Amino acid sequence: MPAAPLNGAPLIGAIEAGGTKFIAALATPEGEILARTRIPTQTPETCFPALADFFAAAQEEHGPVAAFGVASFGPIDIDPTSPTYGTFTTTPKPGWQGARFHDVLGSFGAPIVVDTDVNGACLGEWMKGAGQGCRTLAYTTIGTGVGTGVVSHGRSLMGISHFESGHILPPHDRTLDPFAGSCPYHGDCLEGLASGPAIEKRWGKSLDQLAGDSAAIDLIGGYIAHLAASLVLLQMPDRLIFGGGVMKAPGLVESVRRQTEAKLNGYVSHPRLDAGLETYIVTPGLGDDAGITGAIALGCQALDVALPG
Amino acid sequence: MPAAPLNGAPLIGAIEAGGTKFIAALATPEGEILARTRIPTQTPETCFPALADFFAAAQEEHGPVAAFGVASFGPIDIDPTSPTYGTFTTTPKPGWQGARFHDVLGSFGAPIVVDTDVNGACLGEWMKGAGQGCRTLAYTTIGTGVGTGVVSHGRSLMGISHFESGHILPPHDRTLDPFAGSCPYHGDCLEGLASGPAIEKRWGKSLDQLAGDSAAIDLIGGYIAHLAASLVLLQMPDRLIFGGGVMKAPGLVESVRRQTEAKLNGYVSHPRLDAGLETYIVTPGLGDDAGITGAIALGCQALDVALPG
Repeated sequence: MPAAPLNGAPLIGAIEAGGTKFIAALATPEGEILARTRIPTQTPETCFPALADFFAAAQEEHGPVAAFGVASFGPIDIDPTSPTYGTFTTTPKPGWQGARFHDVLGSFGAPIVVDTDVNGACLGEWMKGAGQGCRTLAYTTIGTGVGTGVVSHGRSLMGISHFESGHILPPHDRTLDPFAGSCPYHGDCLEGLASGPAIEKRWGKSLDQLAGDSAAIDLIGGYIAHLAASLVLLQMPDRLIFGGGVMKAPGLVESVRRQTEAKLNGYVSHPRLDAGLETYIVTPGLGDDAGITGAIALGCQALDVALPG
Repeated sequence: MPAAPLNGAPLIGAIEAGGTKFIAALATPEGEILARTRIPTQTPETCFPALADFFAAAQEEHGPVAAFGVASFGPIDIDPTSPTYGTFTTTPKPGWQGARFHDVLGSFGAPIVVDTDVNGACLGEWMKGAGQGCRTLAYTTIGTGVGTGVVSHGRSLMGISHFESGHILPPHDRTLDPFAGSCPYHGDCLEGLASGPAIEKRWGKSLDQLAGDSAAIDLIGGYIAHLAASLVLLQMPDRLIFGGGVMKAPGLVESVRRQTEAKLNGYVSHPRLDAGLETYIVTPGLGDDAGITGAIALGCQALDVALPG
């Protein structure tokens, strides 16, 4: 028989599902992690039973899971009104298309909220990281892929699907940058020009290894600044966070700030931007913990528990 | 003494404030207009007393105004938590900077909701026009200026301010289109390339007068398609409505559909887009009535009356 919940508080089952690993945790709604595991992202046949075993053992020790929050790689159906909510859609990842989180978590009898990894990271940063106090916060990852989550008043925004900011088209001067782009759909969209794989394909090394090359930094910074300016004009967030592996290149966030400011050219006048973009365009505050923190916040939404912070 | 409200329903004072004229109406929450007037947009000193006189006479005849909804030209502060909510900010329009709708409407003692003209039109189209049934709807006007409003679940979205979609930067091939653009801030942003004044400045005539020139239609259609694709990727609406004077040019909406489809290139797969964009990218359903219909809906929000439709 499971032990009573810690202090009587309901417990959250949180999952950060990434392309290479799953992090699963049992946590309090305030974010205290009571148990945690790491499972390699192989196929649902290996990964899902391991998840079920972890949560079964964790609730045996700490008390029953009251709600699940999942922040997952995609593409995945995150529309709660859809009959296929929580199902991987057109992912090229072998075995995952059609897999559904409800298949493994449903047997626990707790409500489940599923969102994208980047929405989860945005929610985590909003709750406990660099986005605290923001009414509208945009979190963008520039890494293997490029994606943006937007949280407004503590909920992630979506329309008919999650956003796909990686596929916007920045102006591309082929004299300056003859690289044709690596996106199989669009060639030189943002992801095709500025993702980690695009950078490797163009220069044979990572941006980090090119850090002394200010022209390379400014080229990539300019593409990212195009997204930053577009997010300002089409979402008007209180703050933009840029994370992911590419953003770790020294000098890049400074270049993004400088070029975003040049692109907007003073048109958007607001106290949050007017003093310079040092506090408007920032890097993540939580590092590798944003995803699991966001998954806990999603679990809290499933409970309709008031979010801490 | 004012007459009793019609059927006991609360009455809405609605104002569509445009750059050349104000439309003011007293209406039921269902949108039936009981009295209506048109006031030239001169200065607040002439315009505001005329508004006050109209509503005083209208409520004498039909019953008291229970709430006001205002859909206005801008820039205007639409943040309800701001101390300057409802105040014109940096508008170059002589006399209007610092004018505030609460100064004229406050004496009626009814709650006031102020939003932008394009958000109002979006709300109107959502309620009774081409956006009925959409959960997320984007309405863009391409006219003297370019702007987009987005309504989600019956409320217009905003961040620290209203959106400024007219100032996004489409790719600009200067070999194909040597026109430098007319935006005083950005030169060749969307408004600088595709607004009515930009078209007049480039070709000395309106796009309507150039309707036989398919290269001109496709050039402007391509710039607008850049916004359409960006809205899909960053907002994922159920539908995009494009209105305003420029959109009346024959063949333009078809060109926007065709080029948006080419830009997205099948990446966003969803039933609303997969069958072609004929029902996804459309022109307004209400014509000139979108603005005042939206202002009535804003008044309903001020009342917290459930919106019809």
